[in-house]
Amino acid sequence: MKTAAQISAATAWCRMAPSPIVFVPTMGALHAGHASLIRQARRTAGPKGSVVLSIFVNPTQFGPKEDLSRYPRPFAADRKLCREEGVDLLFHPSPEAMYARDHSVSIHEKSLSSGLCGGSRPGHFDGVCTVVAMLFQIVAPDIAIFGEKDWQQLAVIRRMVRDLRMPVTIKGCRTVREKDGLALSSRNRFLSRENRSMAPRIYQTLKARSMEVAGGEVSVARLRRNLIMDLAAIPGASLDYAEIMHESTLSPLKKLDAKNPARALVAVRFGDVRLIDNMALPTPR
Amino acid sequence: MKTAAQISAATAWCRMAPSPIVFVPTMGALHAGHASLIRQARRTAGPKGSVVLSIFVNPTQFGPKEDLSRYPRPFAADRKLCREEGVDLLFHPSPEAMYARDHSVSIHEKSLSSGLCGGSRPGHFDGVCTVVAMLFQIVAPDIAIFGEKDWQQLAVIRRMVRDLRMPVTIKGCRTVREKDGLALSSRNRFLSRENRSMAPRIYQTLKARSMEVAGGEVSVARLRRNLIMDLAAIPGASLDYAEIMHESTLSPLKKLDAKNPARALVAVRFGDVRLIDNMALPTPR
Repeated sequence: MKTAAQISAATAWCRMAPSPIVFVPTMGALHAGHASLIRQARRTAGPKGSVVLSIFVNPTQFGPKEDLSRYPRPFAADRKLCREEGVDLLFHPSPEAMYARDHSVSIHEKSLSSGLCGGSRPGHFDGVCTVVAMLFQIVAPDIAIFGEKDWQQLAVIRRMVRDLRMPVTIKGCRTVREKDGLALSSRNRFLSRENRSMAPRIYQTLKARSMEVAGGEVSVARLRRNLIMDLAAIPGASLDYAEIMHESTLSPLKKLDAKNPARALVAVRFGDVRLIDNMALPTPR
Repeated sequence: MKTAAQISAATAWCRMAPSPIVFVPTMGALHAGHASLIRQARRTAGPKGSVVLSIFVNPTQFGPKEDLSRYPRPFAADRKLCREEGVDLLFHPSPEAMYARDHSVSIHEKSLSSGLCGGSRPGHFDGVCTVVAMLFQIVAPDIAIFGEKDWQQLAVIRRMVRDLRMPVTIKGCRTVREKDGLALSSRNRFLSRENRSMAPRIYQTLKARSMEVAGGEVSVARLRRNLIMDLAAIPGASLDYAEIMHESTLSPLKKLDAKNPARALVAVRFGDVRLIDNMALPTPR
């Protein structure tokens, strides 16, 4: 379906059933990570609930020098995957169907959005919040599912839902990885063979920090220094950021402890391909 | 009801009926203007629909030097008026029930909000948009009613609803006036006797422009000059703004014509009491 009116009418119909509407917003170029989101949505909705998936490469979350035009749009393959995985409703509006020429309203999250990807991509999370809010208004889901790979996005959306009192439950879905540990991403296809062979080391550096914590390390400064050193040592990689933060407020931590669940979050560039990843750190005993 | 959970549960119950939920958001201190909003809501909802009214003096739409603390809060009288006029559900949350201590999400309208009251009150319409969006999420009305006295607010909210695809219909309600023409406002009670006797001249200056247009005047520059001159001549009044703009985009006009419905909008201060008013200008033949 291509228009908001169509999808709203369809979900209004679904809402007559007592089972939930579960929504998976995506930018398309669906891979096994998205398939995992859809399967979680299908399980959550149950046989009588509805799974709605949107495909929309949202222009307002791309910066002027970013990869909007080259972002992959393999619609036929995406639709096939949706059918195979049991999506009930597919919403794929055009940019014109979403944004009026004189659109002038946006949503701003000022706290969790400022660092990490928000630091390298000014305005990115305003674009994300705005389009997710629009999709929530159109689809009116009971539950929405987002991948944990975009951890900051997940935290920002949880905050938006809390602060604007949106009647939707947000669920995270574990990151799906290649056998060698590289987190699945639509951007992986743009890596050169050499860079592709080095990219799994992002995951290994995260894993190594997790082991250090399991071994008794609680100093965030030392963990972060090791994280940066390991990432800097990956041939062809340049570091964008590497941080260890509170998993939901994304505020800096000094020491790991049981009260403050921590997460390591990194972004690395291989040429003009920017990859992100993150991992929960264990709770110190 | 004081919590969002209570009111959401109650409106979910109302939604089982096929008749509409009609919502009137207010800051309390209800007067005959609000009574008119409620009556319009009651008519729109019909005998089987529900009228929900909120009373919330929203801190985020007041500037640091504005009258938040002295804004009147006569709750018992407000509740009585709601009962008499047939409000079904009254929502009066505390500021703490609406805003988390670390709330960090806001809605920004960048085009219609920049001039007029937005010019004198920076951040005001971000606060209005944010709280209205929150109330819409909590109440989930089919229809919401706003007074035309706050014309810019009405236009900004229509824009927010359009751009964020909110599933609610916005209706305006005509300004209610005292016999002498002064638009009803909770702030009128703060006028000195002398200023109160002069305040109806705001309405008269607007009315005079309407007569000029009916007499053939189409130059916005001349109409605006007369508007400013007349307002400046009111004893005790100082002009905040006086503009003639497109009624829905609030963009400036040069000439009145049938294609561009025009509205005159003014704000005037009497001491520290700021009054606003507006009027549609007739379409030139």
